[in-house]
Amino acid sequence: MNQISQENIQVGEIANGLPLTIPVYRLTGNGKGPKVYIQANMHGAEVQGNAVIYQLLEQLKQQTLACEITLVPYANPIGCNQKSGEFTLGRFDPITGTNWNRMYHNHTELVDEFVAQHSESSLDEIRDAFRTLLVEQTQALLDAPAYNINTGKRIALNLQRLAHEADIVLDLHTGPISAKHLYCPEYARLSASYFDIPHVLLIPNVFGGALDEASFCPWWSLSEAFKQQGRDIPVLVEAFTVELGSQEKIDLAEAKNDANSILSYLTYKEMLVNSTYKPKEIARYACMLKDYFAFYAPIGGMVEYVAPLGAHIKAGDTIAHILRMERYLSEQPLQAISLDMDAIAILHFASASVNQGTELYQFFTNYFEL
Amino acid sequence: MNQISQENIQVGEIANGLPLTIPVYRLTGNGKGPKVYIQANMHGAEVQGNAVIYQLLEQLKQQTLACEITLVPYANPIGCNQKSGEFTLGRFDPITGTNWNRMYHNHTELVDEFVAQHSESSLDEIRDAFRTLLVEQTQALLDAPAYNINTGKRIALNLQRLAHEADIVLDLHTGPISAKHLYCPEYARLSASYFDIPHVLLIPNVFGGALDEASFCPWWSLSEAFKQQGRDIPVLVEAFTVELGSQEKIDLAEAKNDANSILSYLTYKEMLVNSTYKPKEIARYACMLKDYFAFYAPIGGMVEYVAPLGAHIKAGDTIAHILRMERYLSEQPLQAISLDMDAIAILHFASASVNQGTELYQFFTNYFEL
Amino acid sequence: MNQISQENIQVGEIANGLPLTIPVYRLTGNGKGPKVYIQANMHGAEVQGNAVIYQLLEQLKQQTLACEITLVPYANPIGCNQKSGEFTLGRFDPITGTNWNRMYHNHTELVDEFVAQHSESSLDEIRDAFRTLLVEQTQALLDAPAYNINTGKRIALNLQRLAHEADIVLDLHTGPISAKHLYCPEYARLSASYFDIPHVLLIPNVFGGALDEASFCPWWSLSEAFKQQGRDIPVLVEAFTVELGSQEKIDLAEAKNDANSILSYLTYKEMLVNSTYKPKEIARYACMLKDYFAFYAPIGGMVEYVAPLGAHIKAGDTIAHILRMERYLSEQPLQAISLDMDAIAILHFASASVNQGTELYQFFTNYFEL
Amino acid sequence: MNQISQENIQVGEIANGLPLTIPVYRLTGNGKGPKVYIQANMHGAEVQGNAVIYQLLEQLKQQTLACEITLVPYANPIGCNQKSGEFTLGRFDPITGTNWNRMYHNHTELVDEFVAQHSESSLDEIRDAFRTLLVEQTQALLDAPAYNINTGKRIALNLQRLAHEADIVLDLHTGPISAKHLYCPEYARLSASYFDIPHVLLIPNVFGGALDEASFCPWWSLSEAFKQQGRDIPVLVEAFTVELGSQEKIDLAEAKNDANSILSYLTYKEMLVNSTYKPKEIARYACMLKDYFAFYAPIGGMVEYVAPLGAHIKAGDTIAHILRMERYLSEQPLQAISLDMDAIAILHFASASVNQGTELYQFFTNYFEL
Repeated sequence: MNQISQENIQVGEIANGLPLTIPVYRLTGNGKGPKVYIQANMHGAEVQGNAVIYQLLEQLKQQTLACEITLVPYANPIGCNQKSGEFTLGRFDPITGTNWNRMYHNHTELVDEFVAQHSESSLDEIRDAFRTLLVEQTQALLDAPAYNINTGKRIALNLQRLAHEADIVLDLHTGPISAKHLYCPEYARLSASYFDIPHVLLIPNVFGGALDEASFCPWWSLSEAFKQQGRDIPVLVEAFTVELGSQEKIDLAEAKNDANSILSYLTYKEMLVNSTYKPKEIARYACMLKDYFAFYAPIGGMVEYVAPLGAHIKAGDTIAHILRMERYLSEQPLQAISLDMDAIAILHFASASVNQGTELYQFFTNYFEL
Repeated sequence: MNQISQENIQVGEIANGLPLTIPVYRLTGNGKGPKVYIQANMHGAEVQGNAVIYQLLEQLKQQTLACEITLVPYANPIGCNQKSGEFTLGRFDPITGTNWNRMYHNHTELVDEFVAQHSESSLDEIRDAFRTLLVEQTQALLDAPAYNINTGKRIALNLQRLAHEADIVLDLHTGPISAKHLYCPEYARLSASYFDIPHVLLIPNVFGGALDEASFCPWWSLSEAFKQQGRDIPVLVEAFTVELGSQEKIDLAEAKNDANSILSYLTYKEMLVNSTYKPKEIARYACMLKDYFAFYAPIGGMVEYVAPLGAHIKAGDTIAHILRMERYLSEQPLQAISLDMDAIAILHFASASVNQGTELYQFFTNYFEL
Repeated sequence: MNQISQENIQVGEIANGLPLTIPVYRLTGNGKGPKVYIQANMHGAEVQGNAVIYQLLEQLKQQTLACEITLVPYANPIGCNQKSGEFTLGRFDPITGTNWNRMYHNHTELVDEFVAQHSESSLDEIRDAFRTLLVEQTQALLDAPAYNINTGKRIALNLQRLAHEADIVLDLHTGPISAKHLYCPEYARLSASYFDIPHVLLIPNVFGGALDEASFCPWWSLSEAFKQQGRDIPVLVEAFTVELGSQEKIDLAEAKNDANSILSYLTYKEMLVNSTYKPKEIARYACMLKDYFAFYAPIGGMVEYVAPLGAHIKAGDTIAHILRMERYLSEQPLQAISLDMDAIAILHFASASVNQGTELYQFFTNYFEL
Repeated sequence: MNQISQENIQVGEIANGLPLTIPVYRLTGNGKGPKVYIQANMHGAEVQGNAVIYQLLEQLKQQTLACEITLVPYANPIGCNQKSGEFTLGRFDPITGTNWNRMYHNHTELVDEFVAQHSESSLDEIRDAFRTLLVEQTQALLDAPAYNINTGKRIALNLQRLAHEADIVLDLHTGPISAKHLYCPEYARLSASYFDIPHVLLIPNVFGGALDEASFCPWWSLSEAFKQQGRDIPVLVEAFTVELGSQEKIDLAEAKNDANSILSYLTYKEMLVNSTYKPKEIARYACMLKDYFAFYAPIGGMVEYVAPLGAHIKAGDTIAHILRMERYLSEQPLQAISLDMDAIAILHFASASVNQGTELYQFFTNYFEL
């Protein structure tokens, strides 16, 4: 039975002066080996990751670990508790509108100098030194005068500091109404087959502010910089955003499935000793990020979503009906909306009421079997 | 083929000075007979009623009418378009917090003087005169200086003026996540069996601000006042709040079922000529409003709702699990919540995140077959 | 130097399972004498009361107390921290829309039985027994199964339990943009002259859900019930809502003035020993609650507020200009709005953008010098 | 007396299917000459620009024009009408969090090919052809399939198409609580002295998504591209963001001052014939954008803002007090916050309640007299 420890880290203060804290759970195994970092619920409404962390803890207690694992539920104590009407309004800072998952720091600019200094270092030395550098530089940002750091940045940097210590980083999210899918860096596509997730987005080495990118971009750039010097080193960190399904939903049985899926991946990565978790035999489809297609509502109205999520849509299939009862007599009040290419429907908007231009669906296009 | 006419009535002005309007559709039949009033979407997220009005219009076009029917989709042009995050924040005025469906006017205070004046009138005279009085008095409130009427009251009074013209009033709502149910005044319980709705709330002659109450309370009180004078007259108006299911959802097939259900009731009330709409043979359960039980979250946390809506729960059954990952090590992180009486689960909260004291479920208790 | 103690009481739990707490400060003096209860910030944006409590504590430290004083800043830990855009959205529960200051419990129904039981009791016995009853009955509500109590009710009852222990209750609020004013029960009008507040609303013995009413209504009804039995006992508790000015503003100097005003009142009530706090010599105007006039925007538009708050307006004076640039060419785009009676402008809406029917101003009408 | 025409352009559709429109006013003068474009209220709470447009129209009616002027109030019909509590929540799309003023398109990528094609063209030909290109390319974006364009982008592109027709573009904004200031591209600093605005931010040729940048960046890049070819052509368009003061406020007298300030600038640019508008003799201070310093709340609490806006602060001066009444006994509850450099306070946060990391102030640092 593994020992689990809890630490509460302070990531801010609210308006009445009380601290904002995040619970951090750790299973240290034998204290050696690589590290795994898993967080959930950075967006307030995306709660299912907390249940997955619960199911992971329940199972990891019994496993023999070849690694240290850090698990962080409720990663965003502001977003998690921000209600507006019945729903949780936790996708962006309610004050500024900034997406909570776009505030991590990109340390890629450290690569050139590091490579210059470590042209003769061993792979292990590189790994240790670069990891130390990332952690220290993140800490240095946190150590700046408090008036330099905004609310979301402070939360993000505290999490990023923990994530940089790890070799494997999983950020558990959900879509609005969504099929399961995985954001996977292109270099790690082999790993994608060890998750029980049928849809895989292959993303390039471009930083957009999210935790997965903040975690792997510097390492990917490091690998490329060494390659330019004629030396082949692998990308030493893998980081994924795992999209578990729909927001505003807790499903404990499905959380167990998703915990098993993660444990299967960790088994493949040899983080568990004598583990028997295996990926399911399912078809997995991939799509390049540039082919991930946002379909905006071409007209405003009330939407019936008819494309089943995960389903393979043919060009011309109806994906939605839009009802506009203001004009029942003057135009066709019920309009069928179709897509003009083949696609897999991955997620759709959470509400039936849309303005013209609201993101209605996201589709895999030009997809292929992984 | 019946003629449908559209009128757009102005119910306010927004901050840029543009008018707020509501579309009003009318089928006048042969211009004689009783009147039916049906509105939808007073609460912004409760959109399915618009689809039911669409399906009603599609079918009523073909029917021979013994009545005049007024249909009002998008009854609340502010609530309908008020977003906060992905969801529609249209249950209450975003400025004041007032529930949009609690701002109708109670004209019951008109009853005593009216009865004194009409002790000798015929039933038809009473019906016509009291109807005229209700319409005029509602119009008089609207004709007051504009600075006397708040935003929600102006919308409500405009709708109420239309509703008071009718013998039958249906206000189409939905719950958050909900089974179909019907708010039915106790005197109209026989009518409840003509809707295809398995759960019926029987409500007393108490005004709480909603349209159904505003529509029937004065007529019910009128009937009782005459009864006190030894004269038996029926309650001459029937009004219902029809809860169609869940909010933020358009389902056109289900909307057709609900249109059929309403047409079955209208057939029973002889509003349609040679109509063959009939109620389905289903079990219908009723519950007195005082036994409609709100169950608040006993602790804060992340909720898995496990009581199926419409299902008959036994005392002690688990109705929800609440997960609290802040205290994984210090207490049982997953708690099973049960109810200590038999009940039918009618609706539950729309989000998986709840504070202590958030309304988790509403249950029929002490229910009986209708 | 008086000893100040702090207790943090738990009033709920948020969605991540953490407790909601409120800090309660107490100065016990010599442990005898009457009790004073002062709270602030029940509405999230009304923060100035916290600064007044700060200034009260700074001064009360030095005073000789003839009473025990309980001071509660941040009375509502949800409202206090609920942002939407830059501003604090803390006037109502963001989930339900219910005004946080309308959820206290009315214990007036206890009066009849109490009077029947205490017809022979002395005044001190009555005071002690009725106080004990109110506290116990409030505690009993809190001791009900947790699933019976909604979020706002739980906060309110916890505060009300503290307030019922006191002889004097002050609930510190602010208006949106507002002159200082005082809600004063009619029986306590003499006391109103000891606050440095020029505008006094005299309110009747009607319960609307607020803390001041919850505090004094039972005692006022008790006095009246004894009067009906031919026995004259005074109303033994005084409770006021003190409106300190505008929301979203901290002004420490003005907070000191308001602390002095409260200390002047407490001196008059002999709660302080050898205190020299005296009311300022200012004109004080009063208005019956029924004459407190809400003026709703007669048209939608952009508002320039021109009636100075606290100023005495003559019938016909312009109180606002409303600009409607959508219709610059088709109508007069700038409209002057006037009031058709004499009045004192007490507060106006916090935003320049109004819908038709937004509450623009509140006025004292039929006012008189106190 | 100049003729004013009004056109309402459609920029979207809301959820009930009704169009979103914006009023566009035009004074065409003699139909020749350059063009001026002025818009207001892109952010919902920043309403004062509408009043400035009102005052401009009132005065432009009387002027002899050497240009055509387009004025657009209520530039954002969603933001303008989005309430959350009393205040207008119109800084970002309430669904996505995207700042409405960060969705314009950057056409700078058109420059290289254009310069290659126009190396021999005259200045007038360049001006006309590049303007035509910008307008056409903006229109082309709008002509894409509707499902490609999100809500904010569609509004922005419609406005941008109008703005690209002009030689002078003014986007009227306000800060939260703010002194007047001007965003001025570095090349146009001479023009800044013709506005009656004491604080000028000099901004580089970097696109951040705002209208002023979208308007001038392509022209600035065009000038630089020709310079690289050895040909000196001026930047042919001037665009400014004019920050009029505080949000949520209409002040008609101040709007007249600001209209005069704009007319003074237009007089300097020879847009008016025989105009006598002149800038006021005031000190004007400038600051490079990189020295515009955001000061985040170093702790959470209730803030008294004490730095007067527009005032020159010395290093070490107190700029705010932060009150934290949760810890009255355990720490200093009132903390003085200071800045460690000289600065001019330009704006501060609109609310007194701040989380740690909320943007408290923005300061000009390293400022100099213009």
